[in-house]
Amino acid sequence: MNKVYIAGVGQTPVSESWDKSLKELAGDAGLMAIDDAGIGYPDALFVGNMMAITANRQAQLATLMADWLGFHQKPAISIETACSSGAAAFRMALMSIASGELESALVIGAEKMTDSPGNEITASLATAADAELEADFGLSFVGLNALLMRRYMYEYGWEHANFANFSINAHANAAHNPYARFQQPITPESFKHSPMISDPINLMDASPVSDGAAAIVLSARPIQNGRKIVSVIASSAMTDTLSLQNRKVGTKLTAAETSAKAAYAQAGLSPVDMGLFEYHDAFSIMAALSLEAAGFADPGQGPQLAIDGKIKFDSDIPVATMGGLKARGHPVGATGIYQLVEATLQLQQRAGATQVRRPKYALTQNIGGSGSNIITHILQAE
Amino acid sequence: MNKVYIAGVGQTPVSESWDKSLKELAGDAGLMAIDDAGIGYPDALFVGNMMAITANRQAQLATLMADWLGFHQKPAISIETACSSGAAAFRMALMSIASGELESALVIGAEKMTDSPGNEITASLATAADAELEADFGLSFVGLNALLMRRYMYEYGWEHANFANFSINAHANAAHNPYARFQQPITPESFKHSPMISDPINLMDASPVSDGAAAIVLSARPIQNGRKIVSVIASSAMTDTLSLQNRKVGTKLTAAETSAKAAYAQAGLSPVDMGLFEYHDAFSIMAALSLEAAGFADPGQGPQLAIDGKIKFDSDIPVATMGGLKARGHPVGATGIYQLVEATLQLQQRAGATQVRRPKYALTQNIGGSGSNIITHILQAE
Repeated sequence: MNKVYIAGVGQTPVSESWDKSLKELAGDAGLMAIDDAGIGYPDALFVGNMMAITANRQAQLATLMADWLGFHQKPAISIETACSSGAAAFRMALMSIASGELESALVIGAEKMTDSPGNEITASLATAADAELEADFGLSFVGLNALLMRRYMYEYGWEHANFANFSINAHANAAHNPYARFQQPITPESFKHSPMISDPINLMDASPVSDGAAAIVLSARPIQNGRKIVSVIASSAMTDTLSLQNRKVGTKLTAAETSAKAAYAQAGLSPVDMGLFEYHDAFSIMAALSLEAAGFADPGQGPQLAIDGKIKFDSDIPVATMGGLKARGHPVGATGIYQLVEATLQLQQRAGATQVRRPKYALTQNIGGSGSNIITHILQAE
Repeated sequence: MNKVYIAGVGQTPVSESWDKSLKELAGDAGLMAIDDAGIGYPDALFVGNMMAITANRQAQLATLMADWLGFHQKPAISIETACSSGAAAFRMALMSIASGELESALVIGAEKMTDSPGNEITASLATAADAELEADFGLSFVGLNALLMRRYMYEYGWEHANFANFSINAHANAAHNPYARFQQPITPESFKHSPMISDPINLMDASPVSDGAAAIVLSARPIQNGRKIVSVIASSAMTDTLSLQNRKVGTKLTAAETSAKAAYAQAGLSPVDMGLFEYHDAFSIMAALSLEAAGFADPGQGPQLAIDGKIKFDSDIPVATMGGLKARGHPVGATGIYQLVEATLQLQQRAGATQVRRPKYALTQNIGGSGSNIITHILQAE
C-alpha cells in the first residue's frame, strides 16, 4: 500500500460545551487542521462519530460538516464503529488516498454527548454493546466493563488499588495539556475514595462523558512545512465477538492483540521500538488489557507496569501522554483522532512538558465496544 | 485507480419483516452474496446502514454482522450517509481493495425500519435533514420533498398527474421481481386517488418504509464462474448543502449532476451509452430530478420521459427496472446495494422478464438527504 502522510492536526479543548454545537466544535477542529497543514482545502472529508443521530438528532454528519466548512461538491462520508469511529474514519481516508482516488483528505472525529440527559446518554452508550444479548437485559456499558474488571481481578489476584496508577498517570500528564478536560492531578487517596459507579469501577477508573473534536489532514505526499514529516506505516482493523459472553477468553482483548501484531508486522517493528502508546483507557481495566494486548506485558501483568512507573512519559512505554481518555476526556467518536493528533505532536516534538524521549515511532489503538472493534495505527517520524 | 470486480450478489425480499431481525436479514443477504461469489469468505466487511442506533438500539452494526457471519478477527466498518449509506459503503470497500489493502470484501446494506412506531420512524428519517435549519422546526423528510415538488411544479408548469408514470413504471417492473415489496401494478386512477401524505406528495408518489438487506462481494480480480464479468468503472461522491434553503437553485440536484458528470468522465462514457439507470426514486419528484441531473433530460423536462414511455425497461433509458425505491421498497441503508445488485443482474442477463436490451453499462445513483450526499457508480459487463 502507498505511504500516506499526516500534513496537519487540530483539536478543540475537551469539555462540557455549552457555547458551541457539535458542528461548531467539529468545524473548529477541521479548520485548525487545514490551517496547520497549509495545503488549502483537501479533496474530501471523512467524519468519525458514534451518536450524533441520537444525541444531536443529526444523521449524515459528514454532509453537514462539508456544508459548514465549505467543501462544496466534494465527497463526505461518516464512519461508525462505536468508540473506535475516529480511527476507523482515519483508516478509510488512508485507503482512499492509497488507492489513488484522492490526493488529500480531512478527517474529523467529533462527539457532543453532554446535550443529552443522563439516562439518554447511558442508553446511547449501551448501543455499543450487543443489543439482543447484553443491552436489552439492562447491562450498561460501564456495567459490562465492571464484569470484566471483576473477573480480571479474580483471575490474577489484583486489588482495586493496584489500578490507581493508570489514572494518576493520566491526570499527571493532562495537567500539562490545555486541551484536556481534567487538568488537576489526583492521588492514591482520591482514587480510593471516589464515588462507586458500578462495582468495582469507581469514578476515577472511568473516562468522562465529554464534548470535543479533533482533526487531521492526510496527504499522498510529504508536506515540507518546517516540522518533522510524519507518515502512517501501519493500519490494522480487527473484530471480536460483540458480546462479552461469547468470548473464549473473557479477560483478554484477542482482537486488540491480533490487530497490534498485524500492525507490527506491517511496520517491521516490535513493541520495544515504540516511543509511546496512545491506548484506549476508557476504564482502568481497558488500560491494563490494552498494554497486554499490544505486547507490553504478559497476560494479567498490565497493572504491574503502572505500579512500577514504567508508563510515565519519560519511562519505558509512555501511555496517555496528554491525559488519555481518562483525563483528556472521551468524546467517543473523536477519541481515535485525539490519539492520532497527540501521537503526531509527540513525533514532531510539539508535546511540551510531557514530551517523550524517543519520538520516532508511535502506536495508537482505538477500541470500539468491549474490545469488539479495534483499529491500530503506527506512525513514524521520517 | 485499480479496477475492482463484482464477484457475487445477494438480496432478501423487501418486506415488513416480523420473523427476522436486522442481523438475520443482513446475514441472509451476506451469505447469499458469499455463496453467489463462490470464493470463500472475503477479507473484510463493510456495512451501509442509517438508523440501527435509533430503530434497533444497535451501534457498530458492522461488528455485530462480523460476529454473526463468522468474520473472526477481520476488519468490519459501518458507513453512514443517510439514504445513500449503501453506495457509500460500496465505495469504501472499493477504495480499500483498490489501495491493495484487501483482496476482497463483503458489502452489506441493511435497514429494519418497521420495528419502530410511526412517530419514531418519522423522527429517525428527519435526522437526514438539517437538524438546526429544518427538522427542529417540524419539517419531516416527506415535507421537505413536498416543498421541492411544489416549487418544481410551479417553475415548470407540471400537474400532479404528470408524475404518475414514474410510479406506474416502477410497479409494472416490480410485478416481475419476487424480492419487491409491492408486486401489483397500479393505474393512473389509483395514482390519482391515493391518500395525500404531504401536499402535493400522495402515497403513490412515495417509497415505502421497509425492511431489507442486500449484499455484494467485491474482488480485486475477475471471478470466472460462468457468468458475465462485471467491473466497477466509475465511482463518484459529491455533497451539496444539507438544507434545501441554502441551495442557489432549489429545483435542481446540483451535486447529483456534478457526481454523474465525474462518473461519466472517469468511464469515458456519456448518458447515451447507459443501458439502464437505477435511480433514487424515493419520491416521484426525485425520479424527475435524478433523470435531469444524470443528463437524460433538460432541467424541468424529466416528467416528459415518463409520459413518453422512454423509461420502460425495453425503451431508451430503463429506470427502476426491478421496481425502484417506489415499488421494490426503500429500506434506506440497504437501497444503494439493492440498486447495485439489480444493475449487476441486468448486466449478467439474470433479470428475467424486465431484462434490458443493452446490458453493457449500468448507471446507479444513490441519494442521501434531499440531494445532499450523492454516490454514483458505473458498472460494465466485460
